[in-house]
Amino acid sequence: MTRLFLRIDFEPSGSALGLGMVQLLEGIAEHGSLRRAAAAMGMSYRKAWLLVQSVQKTFDGPVVTAEVGGATGGGTELTELGNTLLKLYRRVESRAADATKTELEQLSGMVRATAAPRRAGKRKRTTKN
Amino acid sequence: MTRLFLRIDFEPSGSALGLGMVQLLEGIAEHGSLRRAAAAMGMSYRKAWLLVQSVQKTFDGPVVTAEVGGATGGGTELTELGNTLLKLYRRVESRAADATKTELEQLSGMVRATAAPRRAGKRKRTTKN
Repeated sequence: MTRLFLRIDFEPSGSALGLGMVQLLEGIAEHGSLRRAAAAMGMSYRKAWLLVQSVQKTFDGPVVTAEVGGATGGGTELTELGNTLLKLYRRVESRAADATKTELEQLSGMVRATAAPRRAGKRKRTTKN
Repeated sequence: MTRLFLRIDFEPSGSALGLGMVQLLEGIAEHGSLRRAAAAMGMSYRKAWLLVQSVQKTFDGPVVTAEVGGATGGGTELTELGNTLLKLYRRVESRAADATKTELEQLSGMVRATAAPRRAGKRKRTTKN
């Protein structure tokens, strides 16, 4: 399987929408909480919070609702703008994949069959004796 | 202007072809030298060399010719496989952009006009008084 990962850059603002942001927004939609969305991705709360701030600054309106209520309460949800963003990003992804099937198959056919993280003769971090 | 940046992931090998690699290969084609290609990108020679090693391991054959001759001599060129890779990647890029014009324009219209690294009222890391 060959997969296409996309980052959309908005020039000249210098801002971007990438897969990490999109996955975090999807997590928020699923879990109803930034903290739980971050945990589900194995991302620190701080990093998730910064990502959300950056998305909020990029777009013309709030993308998620404010989290209120401290450690247990509150919760975060996507706004209508946030939902639209997600839908558009995923549509870009699927249209791009459809339009490039032939080339992706050609590239995939050029990949070394044995190209794997583990290679013969190479061991996983052994301690020196 | 809205731009699409692509990374192509080859599963299950875990290897990928991204913009950094592609730009380095283009630099090698232009400069005929890994060292000069790295310098033109503001990339360290070591990082460029590692990137090339990773591309070489990913594909089913050499992507660049070996650099021989030390600090001044030698030189590196793309192989036929390397040239084909580049051509395919750029074709994926342009087809994906063509296929997603409508969505990219919609997204672009949702970006905050004033979204810039510097914002009014926000100062660069002030110390607490």
